[in-house]
Amino acid sequence: MKPSSSRSEALLRGLSGAADVDAELDDRALLQAMLDTEAALARAATDVGLLPAQIADEIARHCHAERYDPTALGAAADAAGNPVVPLVRELTAAVAEPARPWVHYGATSQDVLDSALALVVLRAAGPLLRHVEAAADAAAGLARIHRDTLMVARTLGQQAAPTTFGLKAAGWLLGLHEARTRLARVREALPAQLGGAVGTLAGYGPAGPAVVERFAAHLGLAASPLPWHTRRQPVLDLAAALGGLLAATGKVALDVGLLAQTEVGEVGEGGEGRGGSSAMPHKRNPVDSVLVTAAARRAPGLVGTLFAAAGQEHERATGGWHAEWEPLLELLHLAGGAAARTARMLTGLRVHPDRMRANLDAGGGLLLAEAVAARLAPALGRAAAHDLVKRAATGPGFRAALLADPDVRAHLSVADVDAALDPAGWLGSAGHLVDRALDLHRDGTR
Amino acid sequence: MKPSSSRSEALLRGLSGAADVDAELDDRALLQAMLDTEAALARAATDVGLLPAQIADEIARHCHAERYDPTALGAAADAAGNPVVPLVRELTAAVAEPARPWVHYGATSQDVLDSALALVVLRAAGPLLRHVEAAADAAAGLARIHRDTLMVARTLGQQAAPTTFGLKAAGWLLGLHEARTRLARVREALPAQLGGAVGTLAGYGPAGPAVVERFAAHLGLAASPLPWHTRRQPVLDLAAALGGLLAATGKVALDVGLLAQTEVGEVGEGGEGRGGSSAMPHKRNPVDSVLVTAAARRAPGLVGTLFAAAGQEHERATGGWHAEWEPLLELLHLAGGAAARTARMLTGLRVHPDRMRANLDAGGGLLLAEAVAARLAPALGRAAAHDLVKRAATGPGFRAALLADPDVRAHLSVADVDAALDPAGWLGSAGHLVDRALDLHRDGTR
Amino acid sequence: MKPSSSRSEALLRGLSGAADVDAELDDRALLQAMLDTEAALARAATDVGLLPAQIADEIARHCHAERYDPTALGAAADAAGNPVVPLVRELTAAVAEPARPWVHYGATSQDVLDSALALVVLRAAGPLLRHVEAAADAAAGLARIHRDTLMVARTLGQQAAPTTFGLKAAGWLLGLHEARTRLARVREALPAQLGGAVGTLAGYGPAGPAVVERFAAHLGLAASPLPWHTRRQPVLDLAAALGGLLAATGKVALDVGLLAQTEVGEVGEGGEGRGGSSAMPHKRNPVDSVLVTAAARRAPGLVGTLFAAAGQEHERATGGWHAEWEPLLELLHLAGGAAARTARMLTGLRVHPDRMRANLDAGGGLLLAEAVAARLAPALGRAAAHDLVKRAATGPGFRAALLADPDVRAHLSVADVDAALDPAGWLGSAGHLVDRALDLHRDGTR
Amino acid sequence: MKPSSSRSEALLRGLSGAADVDAELDDRALLQAMLDTEAALARAATDVGLLPAQIADEIARHCHAERYDPTALGAAADAAGNPVVPLVRELTAAVAEPARPWVHYGATSQDVLDSALALVVLRAAGPLLRHVEAAADAAAGLARIHRDTLMVARTLGQQAAPTTFGLKAAGWLLGLHEARTRLARVREALPAQLGGAVGTLAGYGPAGPAVVERFAAHLGLAASPLPWHTRRQPVLDLAAALGGLLAATGKVALDVGLLAQTEVGEVGEGGEGRGGSSAMPHKRNPVDSVLVTAAARRAPGLVGTLFAAAGQEHERATGGWHAEWEPLLELLHLAGGAAARTARMLTGLRVHPDRMRANLDAGGGLLLAEAVAARLAPALGRAAAHDLVKRAATGPGFRAALLADPDVRAHLSVADVDAALDPAGWLGSAGHLVDRALDLHRDGTR
Repeated sequence: MKPSSSRSEALLRGLSGAADVDAELDDRALLQAMLDTEAALARAATDVGLLPAQIADEIARHCHAERYDPTALGAAADAAGNPVVPLVRELTAAVAEPARPWVHYGATSQDVLDSALALVVLRAAGPLLRHVEAAADAAAGLARIHRDTLMVARTLGQQAAPTTFGLKAAGWLLGLHEARTRLARVREALPAQLGGAVGTLAGYGPAGPAVVERFAAHLGLAASPLPWHTRRQPVLDLAAALGGLLAATGKVALDVGLLAQTEVGEVGEGGEGRGGSSAMPHKRNPVDSVLVTAAARRAPGLVGTLFAAAGQEHERATGGWHAEWEPLLELLHLAGGAAARTARMLTGLRVHPDRMRANLDAGGGLLLAEAVAARLAPALGRAAAHDLVKRAATGPGFRAALLADPDVRAHLSVADVDAALDPAGWLGSAGHLVDRALDLHRDGTR
Repeated sequence: MKPSSSRSEALLRGLSGAADVDAELDDRALLQAMLDTEAALARAATDVGLLPAQIADEIARHCHAERYDPTALGAAADAAGNPVVPLVRELTAAVAEPARPWVHYGATSQDVLDSALALVVLRAAGPLLRHVEAAADAAAGLARIHRDTLMVARTLGQQAAPTTFGLKAAGWLLGLHEARTRLARVREALPAQLGGAVGTLAGYGPAGPAVVERFAAHLGLAASPLPWHTRRQPVLDLAAALGGLLAATGKVALDVGLLAQTEVGEVGEGGEGRGGSSAMPHKRNPVDSVLVTAAARRAPGLVGTLFAAAGQEHERATGGWHAEWEPLLELLHLAGGAAARTARMLTGLRVHPDRMRANLDAGGGLLLAEAVAARLAPALGRAAAHDLVKRAATGPGFRAALLADPDVRAHLSVADVDAALDPAGWLGSAGHLVDRALDLHRDGTR
Repeated sequence: MKPSSSRSEALLRGLSGAADVDAELDDRALLQAMLDTEAALARAATDVGLLPAQIADEIARHCHAERYDPTALGAAADAAGNPVVPLVRELTAAVAEPARPWVHYGATSQDVLDSALALVVLRAAGPLLRHVEAAADAAAGLARIHRDTLMVARTLGQQAAPTTFGLKAAGWLLGLHEARTRLARVREALPAQLGGAVGTLAGYGPAGPAVVERFAAHLGLAASPLPWHTRRQPVLDLAAALGGLLAATGKVALDVGLLAQTEVGEVGEGGEGRGGSSAMPHKRNPVDSVLVTAAARRAPGLVGTLFAAAGQEHERATGGWHAEWEPLLELLHLAGGAAARTARMLTGLRVHPDRMRANLDAGGGLLLAEAVAARLAPALGRAAAHDLVKRAATGPGFRAALLADPDVRAHLSVADVDAALDPAGWLGSAGHLVDRALDLHRDGTR
Repeated sequence: MKPSSSRSEALLRGLSGAADVDAELDDRALLQAMLDTEAALARAATDVGLLPAQIADEIARHCHAERYDPTALGAAADAAGNPVVPLVRELTAAVAEPARPWVHYGATSQDVLDSALALVVLRAAGPLLRHVEAAADAAAGLARIHRDTLMVARTLGQQAAPTTFGLKAAGWLLGLHEARTRLARVREALPAQLGGAVGTLAGYGPAGPAVVERFAAHLGLAASPLPWHTRRQPVLDLAAALGGLLAATGKVALDVGLLAQTEVGEVGEGGEGRGGSSAMPHKRNPVDSVLVTAAARRAPGLVGTLFAAAGQEHERATGGWHAEWEPLLELLHLAGGAAARTARMLTGLRVHPDRMRANLDAGGGLLLAEAVAARLAPALGRAAAHDLVKRAATGPGFRAALLADPDVRAHLSVADVDAALDPAGWLGSAGHLVDRALDLHRDGTR
């Protein structure tokens, strides 16, 4: 089978990813991670006395990606079913004679590829988490600035009651914060893989566990108590964390897209020259919102694929393992793009408090019915207050109807009614909740 | 829209679930959880001084599922889009007049249903975790008993090298242990939901956060820093934990099914009268393995659905939330069945060490080629040793070829060759890894 | 394993399903379909001369669901892994002695359950397709009535250019029409399953193919050229058709929900007393839109599950088959609910042409920039016309700017400008496309 | 946002795809398809008299992919959210002045990208269907050659009764045949997309429908009755067809992998030098089976993603559309790889009839119990015959037990018993079914 030509990378892939994260996922990055794994293996064997240090040095000396041709390796991988077999062959040929028998010592292909992929995740998580943090910081900024900016809350698509844009942003912030926390925790726990051909570490004699320990240490990964060749919880943890991140960014993008609707107009995306339409020059499309939404919609299928791939049999699997590689990298790719675009979208967000206020007021005070009832309740009881307000709410002018109602006026002055109809007075704990989210964010990134 | 008739509950549902878990998921259980939520809300309001205790008492007095008809509530739910609206109406009608305005005080439907579902999860997690523990205990028992039972390890479906059945069982054990740990952690963190109409807690004035605190405490749930009406990380955490559990049980079932194949015959499911075939009286089907495999294959789609449903807009969502209810309950249902059946399957597992040994020996020692090479390596160097063994491995009788080879015999006696060909001598750290898994299990359940 | 208790049927299930479709999916319906299958098998064997007619009569006489207890059968199913084994046992016990050996003659459990599920689909497709047709008829009615009702088209959430509500409804119509066509085609092709224990029809000697033919004919199903025990294309065809239907209804619901947003207000759901909110009396929620959206969001996971379950090995599968039953029934359930609700939603839809017009006009003519340029193009060339219009479009009053521009006025009178700014003049083929969709619908249901 | 670097193309992508199909999916291919679309648009406008032919010629003259830089286009796409906007800009700049205003005339970005993707599918379907046909031909060859090769059928992993390898291959053949038929049908119906900015074809005046007709004809695509900007049934049809193909190949691969297990050994993959293991030189891995299985396991998530993406709002969607591009191309990529590998796997398959026979005989005749009972039935009645056989089947030697049983011997001679125990006599219609599948294949490809 000839090597595949490159796919629609240049045209489409940039729309779903971010350059810095993708740079950690490409051929060179994966190849280097595989070679780092081979070098770490030799170092670990030296550490426990199985291998002279100069042998490990000689092997490590050849563990540089630029010495190998990914295309040739990929082509040769077809015969073996994975790229480790040809890489080990080439590395073995490259090292000096005495080091040859020690290349890939005691390991199996999956040890190398699983550990390399863990390393790739570790490295990609750097820029990825920075984007998440930038997005969270931007959300925090919005929450702080608009802590008391009034807007209407919407439930099931309908205007419901007053809230603040700060609280909305605080919700975004908390979502991003939680996603970041989970991803960081999973990154901490990413295990190296080392079990040898069948998971017994047979090639190392009694030194097996010590080799695993040192191997993981060299790679900066955790040591797993047992090999996880067919126990894929680490992959599932990662899938869930990345899926959660895409959900959190997707929620932000969904809200931004809806708030940017022409008829709502409460926010707009920033960025000069972005969002043009090929057919309609007057249009300004919320491009980042759209692209983040698109990425978020692709995540659940990939998360499901990784959970489905976890059904792996015996000591090493017949396809389940192979099914993980590309979906895992794809999920990282999408997470990178979504996080970077969310950061950009929130950083440049144009917020229109006037439109927020106008939309809030368009309901003519009806959104405050509950507030008026609450003010009448102490005197009338909650039930009677509720009925009274309901009666006034059926006609066209709610304020006028309230003021014209003698039962209302028996208890409330004009000023009282106006106070009740002031949305700023019916925000409950909105400000407090914003502060709490900001505190969590501050503590979480300290 | 008339209420739906009951679906294929009795005929099919028992094959994918477990009775004790399912009992926590049914109409009565959910209804009681909703009523517990309403009672807790009244209690919480009392705690912070918003409500006289006798009002809360009166409300709580009517919060018993048997007083309400789920079918009538379900039918009435169609007009509102959720079952909370009609339940609140009925509860309000049921309590004494003065308590009426205080029913569902300051809350929204989603507060009640989300909290009730969290409660349902909490309660279902009881029997569910017991099944997982029973399964883990059974796996631990197998790992302990068969710590040194030789069998052949298989990779990509091919016999590969010796291992022990104990190590295989230890892998199952660790998978179950990790799934249990994650599920228990998620259960600990399950938050109550309380935000009021739009998440500002407007109905409680400045007491909002205190009400949330007390409300969660009464329910035995965690208090969330902000309402999570449209920030669904708690649901995703749960989805991932349940999906992981189904993956862990699915891996066990997959292995058992493959080991139970007629041609392999290394294990069989126990249980008198189980596994009969309608067409073939001589057959004995591994029924639990099959049903757990089936449950595990249904999980990824449900996990994906819950991740997809997390795209929820504004302050409360237009469909995303409603899409969660049944898939979440279904995932719990499947997890219950898979865990219970895995426990039964492992507890009753018939292990056949003789067949394991026979299958291991069928390869005529070729599986030990690596071991022979390792024995020759100190004298010949790893490369030469490897070549020598490869030469002997091409012919039919591996042992005979080794013994006939003068280069081999120059370094190894007959006894040496036989020692090298003894699979028990090529198990690496298998025993150590089994002990480690048993230790983790013992520590984890203490 | 004790039988599972019934799940949250009454409280939640009506919100995702429709009563008449669900009635074809319940225990009694499935049980009757299984018994119909056993009766058809006996009839078929009689037809080809393998069985005396009175034996078939005796068997058929006992093939009535009310004679059997689904709960007992479900409990007994646990030992066998499917409900056919205990049903055959009970049916055998029920018939007169001479008929006993002929019950389930030559068949395997999967023959009965697959055929019964096909029968269930066939029967459920009746009310299901009626709902789809009602929804399509309602969409056609809207398309016809509002063929020329002006509204603004929206792309990426932004107002883009004029269209008609008729064209939008025609798009819904065509989507429903295509989904109906595909589902009807799949229903036509639904095959009976009959292969015997391993798919060779061994029990019937040379009469096998004839038995299959007659069996299918008795059930009103198609005869498959080969048994499809582990070749699941028929299930995939069904999954795709049902998934497509849920996507088509989901698209309608999504549009309705967005058009019903408070700030848009172009449509509203009908139905007295529906859509009330527990917390906000003034709110009117688009409940059917929300519930159809929710159903549509659950479909992809189930479709994916059925595609994943299709990996079935050897002659009958270890879990893949068992994983299909409930997701298939669930997909039918959701399709029923979505179709019925879409029909109700569209039938009762309140359309507000005035709001449509107001939203369209709110853009102050800018949406017609392309139309003005088109009118200038013959005289100025397309490029110059485009530039001219762009210049006018930057200021606040587009019409005034056009009229004030001497280059514009050199070619267009005030009446010309006003004609260009009339959205009714920039509808292209909208009316024609509406007529075409109506024709297709008329032809398709004739 | 900087353009993303290329992902792990060379190392991993060849393991899941096929070079010739992938060549139709890469940047150059997509870019050319977009340009073909622009050229076809100009030609269509000429055909209906909207555009002079020389303008169309000038535009078409510049519609060659090698004139444009995909990397630059991809980078510029970030601002617009799709690659069409910058391509139109560059194409406009490239053509001679008079042609400029006519580039992309009356179209919107989605018209171009949807039509281009349809074109890409059309072109990729060429090599893809050839691989499917090669695989089907190979399966047909196996079915023909092994029409009467005895083997044991397995259900739920257990040996069940005799069948032929020919019937197994015929099942594979029929699965591939059905998948091919569906994919070919979908390819025939692939529609061009043309609606203009909002689907009204406003830019073409009354000529809209005629332009659509001619546009589709120039592209070799079908003309859709209405634009399908947010009615995605064509994408769903494609997703289902590709998913079905991956399921059909996955079933073959699953069977091959299981039959190739060391303990079963009935088939092996061919191909010199393929399937080597990095750790175990004696192993021969069924690599194609593994890789096809892996591809098949990735399909359901992508199918689900495309069904989920179909929820597209208004006239053009906010993310749903963008979410389709890469998953659709990925599904084509996987289908190509799976089909090519299945063809190679089946063409080179090593079949071992001796192992098949040995495995069949290992059951000592017990698999024929039903056959013996069938022979006794005419004399004893089915029930008594069944009991008699059951009695004999409990002991160790089934044949001996039968011969020793006076009730058996009263009706059957030694020759009769041996005839009943001959698996070749209990194959039912296996041969007939093989012939039927071969006939279907022959007719289908004529």
